[in-house]
Amino acid sequence: MAKLHMVDTFDYVVFGATGDLTMRKLLPALYHRFRDGQIPEDSRVIGTSRSRLSHDEFRDRAEKALRRFVKDDSLDENTVQRFLGMVFFASVNGAEAESTWDNLRELFGDDRADVVRVFYFATSPELYGAICKNLHDNGLVTEKTRVVLEKPIGHDLESARKVNDEVGAYFEENKVFRIDHYLGKETVQNLIALRFANPVFERLWDSDAIEHVQITAAETVGVEGRGDYYDHSGALRDMIQNHLLQVLCLVAMEPPGSLDADDLRNEKLKVLRALKPIREEDVPNVAVRGQYGRGKIGKEIVPAYLEELGDGKQSDTETFVAIRAEVHSWRWGKVPFYLRSGKRLPNKVSEIVVQFRETPWSIFKSKLEANRLIIRLQPEEGIQLSVMNKVPGGDGMELRPANINVSFEQAFGARYPDAYERLLMDTVRGDPVLFMRRDEVEAAWTWVEPILNAWKKNCSPVHHYPAGSWGPDAARKLLAVTRNAWHEDMA
Amino acid sequence: MAKLHMVDTFDYVVFGATGDLTMRKLLPALYHRFRDGQIPEDSRVIGTSRSRLSHDEFRDRAEKALRRFVKDDSLDENTVQRFLGMVFFASVNGAEAESTWDNLRELFGDDRADVVRVFYFATSPELYGAICKNLHDNGLVTEKTRVVLEKPIGHDLESARKVNDEVGAYFEENKVFRIDHYLGKETVQNLIALRFANPVFERLWDSDAIEHVQITAAETVGVEGRGDYYDHSGALRDMIQNHLLQVLCLVAMEPPGSLDADDLRNEKLKVLRALKPIREEDVPNVAVRGQYGRGKIGKEIVPAYLEELGDGKQSDTETFVAIRAEVHSWRWGKVPFYLRSGKRLPNKVSEIVVQFRETPWSIFKSKLEANRLIIRLQPEEGIQLSVMNKVPGGDGMELRPANINVSFEQAFGARYPDAYERLLMDTVRGDPVLFMRRDEVEAAWTWVEPILNAWKKNCSPVHHYPAGSWGPDAARKLLAVTRNAWHEDMA
Repeated sequence: MAKLHMVDTFDYVVFGATGDLTMRKLLPALYHRFRDGQIPEDSRVIGTSRSRLSHDEFRDRAEKALRRFVKDDSLDENTVQRFLGMVFFASVNGAEAESTWDNLRELFGDDRADVVRVFYFATSPELYGAICKNLHDNGLVTEKTRVVLEKPIGHDLESARKVNDEVGAYFEENKVFRIDHYLGKETVQNLIALRFANPVFERLWDSDAIEHVQITAAETVGVEGRGDYYDHSGALRDMIQNHLLQVLCLVAMEPPGSLDADDLRNEKLKVLRALKPIREEDVPNVAVRGQYGRGKIGKEIVPAYLEELGDGKQSDTETFVAIRAEVHSWRWGKVPFYLRSGKRLPNKVSEIVVQFRETPWSIFKSKLEANRLIIRLQPEEGIQLSVMNKVPGGDGMELRPANINVSFEQAFGARYPDAYERLLMDTVRGDPVLFMRRDEVEAAWTWVEPILNAWKKNCSPVHHYPAGSWGPDAARKLLAVTRNAWHEDMA
Repeated sequence: MAKLHMVDTFDYVVFGATGDLTMRKLLPALYHRFRDGQIPEDSRVIGTSRSRLSHDEFRDRAEKALRRFVKDDSLDENTVQRFLGMVFFASVNGAEAESTWDNLRELFGDDRADVVRVFYFATSPELYGAICKNLHDNGLVTEKTRVVLEKPIGHDLESARKVNDEVGAYFEENKVFRIDHYLGKETVQNLIALRFANPVFERLWDSDAIEHVQITAAETVGVEGRGDYYDHSGALRDMIQNHLLQVLCLVAMEPPGSLDADDLRNEKLKVLRALKPIREEDVPNVAVRGQYGRGKIGKEIVPAYLEELGDGKQSDTETFVAIRAEVHSWRWGKVPFYLRSGKRLPNKVSEIVVQFRETPWSIFKSKLEANRLIIRLQPEEGIQLSVMNKVPGGDGMELRPANINVSFEQAFGARYPDAYERLLMDTVRGDPVLFMRRDEVEAAWTWVEPILNAWKKNCSPVHHYPAGSWGPDAARKLLAVTRNAWHEDMA
């Protein structure tokens, strides 16, 4: 494990604290950081929501969450109890000025005024502005206060600007942490190391050597209980506009002048602005949307999206997107970037496939496969490089590809922290390097919006695909046009 | 395993058949090829030497050799017996015209005239010419006859030319197979695949990306019983002039137009001719010679070279050589090639270390190690690439090198054939691609000779090093001058 420094004492206030994200991710992440000695014991984790819970009732829920979502070998009784002693609750409706703000205010006396204070918004983004105003009006914003905004930041460019304006009215940009947990993934951070600490990769990192790039985030789950939320979002907003475009930025960016937050984010922004704009009329040629029907994941028969929505609802919301993007720059001219995300696909896998060009000439009888570097973000973080080798023995020079495989967890013999662990500590330390700046979010929406608009006008069909397949055939055709194939279809 | 084709029926005649090479390498290699079904059962292996042995006495020796040098799981009784049934013996002194050539001639009736005939010279090279003449005079050379010449081909340029002239008087160049078993090693052949089937390597294969190359062949053994032979040879003749220069050729050569023998060998020749000539007066600056004293290999105390020679003999013969070579070409300008070979070193290891250049700039606080590709020829053939990675966890971007390791034997799940297996079958098939052409051998001697001459004139000292060390300190200094370090000294 890398060096850890203890952060300053903090009060971490979560709005939407009874929700899934808090239980599944935020509390376990804070627990792990506490267990590793990174969190001073006089820090506090304060849940808020409209529910009327006592501190102890909320602690009970927190304890259940830890027992469910933290691995047994990381759960020791003493640490759990000490952590729960740091957990508090305040019943507040953050969006309403008339709410019982005293419940929260009472928790902050003068002695906490100098303590780092983080407000984490795990609520609907429409409420972010109101919460900010109420925090301000109730005197809860100190010099050392920051806010953390969960995705989605808006549902299109205009609403994103509105959220950013509303939050910006009360918090300067350097106090606003827009979280994208993909940036907290070790392998995504490692992209920066792989590229800029290893000439053997960075020297190959351009259109001379690279034929195309694929970025895939595939889930096996459907929308299940989240149908109501998801149906207003869809895969493009939920995955592409944020996570996959952020990954694309790290793959495609030029070397930053330093690892300072703004140097790095300036380079990412350059990539977003270099994305070839997609005109509405071109959407049918470069973007495919799909929705899963009934099907099979493994041996389990799973319902269609519309069945999961229930009540006989009809919907054109996409649960699958594939896009062919282009980065208009000297480095990436002629290199397609394929982005793809979907639910109810056969495997849970997030990966970047860097497909190198073929040899310009072959002196071998064996068919050569072009080299391929796969950077796996999940399930197991690691890299894989396919290399043509001589098959041992034989009369001549028979070649076959062999995969050079590294699992980072094995290589480093260390537990891989969850993305939220790093990111939550960064919000305490006030380090925004792994968070999205306002202009990045808006540039991403700007690029995505014509696709949303075209689909709203129904200018291209919603392709249905059976759950458990790799999405509609149209996604395959999208690549066939450029003589490429998705990773799972490659030889 | 790669595809195998059965070779044509052959008669394989070995001169020097009671020697170590035949027992340790040639018979086991032929046995393996037979066991894998590559050798027709009406082929024959005919040992000859001055000893007076019956067929059965030689078969007994052959059987003992198989039981000693073939792994148990490859020894099955039926196959061993069938193989021994193909083994014959003829008592002949190949170098003497007056010898009992009838013993050999009797084994060849008219019915074997059309059968591929290979004469393998596992004798002293001074005898090659005489054997060729006698083969010819005794009518043993057919249309389908080839000769195989073991190293060393001479002990300097002049004697090499003499051997080549003498053999050439009776055999055209395409019938002459100069064996260098390094070329039969799978990993050495795989160099051609790695470079010319993988743009990810070949695009990095030049002085822009590569800082220097090290080629090391280290042995733990001393000269033991071979002192008399070795004392007239030394490490430069025994290892550098042939094996290591051949490996250097494959590392440094330009892509050949095809895998045809002459296309490949023309490219190797170009490298040998591009080696910067070493003037005698420069030898002290670019070459180091050493001789082992008493020392320890593992826990065993081993005697000095001079003790192994015995009889109180004195000798300046080098058991260790290190040379800084340069290849004068567009691709390799400014890239030192370090060659090194020695006896009584700490490990038995043959490897090529391709040291890449450092990043031109670093944005990281961690010290970066430049990438390094290690191609291991033995003990376990494989490759290893060192890559800088983010250490998981932590607050920032702490980097550490991690090794990506591939053992080919594991990757392919196949037994790795011994180098001689492939090479012996190539001599039957008449394929010279993995053999040294006359001009290559002579070009290698031309380059090596000034070093031999300078040492003969004692213009640089014989550095003594303790057995079990990595050679004399002067070898370390040779690299320090160019700010480099041998692999085992690298951080």
